[in-house]
Amino acid sequence: MSADPLERCIQQLARFPGIGQRTATRLAYWLVRQEPHVAAEIASAIEALPQEIRRCSICCTLTPTDPCARCSDPRRDAALICVVEQPQDIASIEATGEYRGRYHVLMGSISPLDGVGPDELRIKELLARVDGGAVREVLVATDPDVEGDTTALYLASLLKPLRVRVTRLAHGIAVGTELEYADKGSVARAIENRREL
Amino acid sequence: MSADPLERCIQQLARFPGIGQRTATRLAYWLVRQEPHVAAEIASAIEALPQEIRRCSICCTLTPTDPCARCSDPRRDAALICVVEQPQDIASIEATGEYRGRYHVLMGSISPLDGVGPDELRIKELLARVDGGAVREVLVATDPDVEGDTTALYLASLLKPLRVRVTRLAHGIAVGTELEYADKGSVARAIENRREL
Repeated sequence: MSADPLERCIQQLARFPGIGQRTATRLAYWLVRQEPHVAAEIASAIEALPQEIRRCSICCTLTPTDPCARCSDPRRDAALICVVEQPQDIASIEATGEYRGRYHVLMGSISPLDGVGPDELRIKELLARVDGGAVREVLVATDPDVEGDTTALYLASLLKPLRVRVTRLAHGIAVGTELEYADKGSVARAIENRREL
Repeated sequence: MSADPLERCIQQLARFPGIGQRTATRLAYWLVRQEPHVAAEIASAIEALPQEIRRCSICCTLTPTDPCARCSDPRRDAALICVVEQPQDIASIEATGEYRGRYHVLMGSISPLDGVGPDELRIKELLARVDGGAVREVLVATDPDVEGDTTALYLASLLKPLRVRVTRLAHGIAVGTELEYADKGSVARAIENRREL
């Protein structure tokens, strides 16, 4: 650890993923040029994070309270659970204003190449929630990639014996995209998932 | 200011230049996944920065001690001053191992479009150092762009009446660059600054 505070700050900022030595240097020099309270405010927010954020014991999302605000909201339908890979995925679903059920965060997707198997994910906790019998439908919202699809199929195989409806987000051509410019993966999904008119 | 620690950390990280909402979110979620001491270490380095870093009263660089280590090093030639735009430029000169003089940091370059005139730079301090009569040569190492060139010419006009030698870093085709691939600005400089063989 360097004794020079500037060097030390650069090294610490460079620990963030995607922030290299050059960017960290630029950020540290920017910090020095600001009023001292800027550094204090940023530092205090970073320091508070692991102390004030925990995992919701029901849905496994990151939250300052346990259970989280959504799990303890009685206006949300407890019989409907949307399964996402990461806590930040919840914001995309919430932004639509179309979903009023609960959530479950897996904390990843099945990816043998990265050493992530079913045991590394919060699947056991999901099964426990569904096994109680109060859940009507599980909407699987994992990403439309190999890992997300694998995870969705694996979840379906575990959940269907529990007599719960298992659905998956529709994937196809994005709204606003012209067919000419759509990527072939999305077009393939759109054909596969075609609907009667 | 958000009451949610995660949201607050994202907002604070997004204050850094070049770090938007998306990157800040990624960094905050990364932080939550680390051991708690990681956030504490990063926060402490950021917080210490404005408290422990000051300006050298001689060369105006950022330093934990005043005067800075280079200004108080008796093995460095005090009669030779290299003028740079920013403290981080010093590292590039030092990396060559070719320079054993002192430095002077302007904290920018003359740029009327950005509202930076000579009075915003540490030029007064440079003139005071040279005016003492102990300085033999000032090597201007401002960037080879319009602002750096303007600053260099302006400094030369102020320094020459003080009977000091004023030099400028050579600019031309970078070592290792083939002529075919050199940018036209560098080639133009190389022609302009051509030397006798």
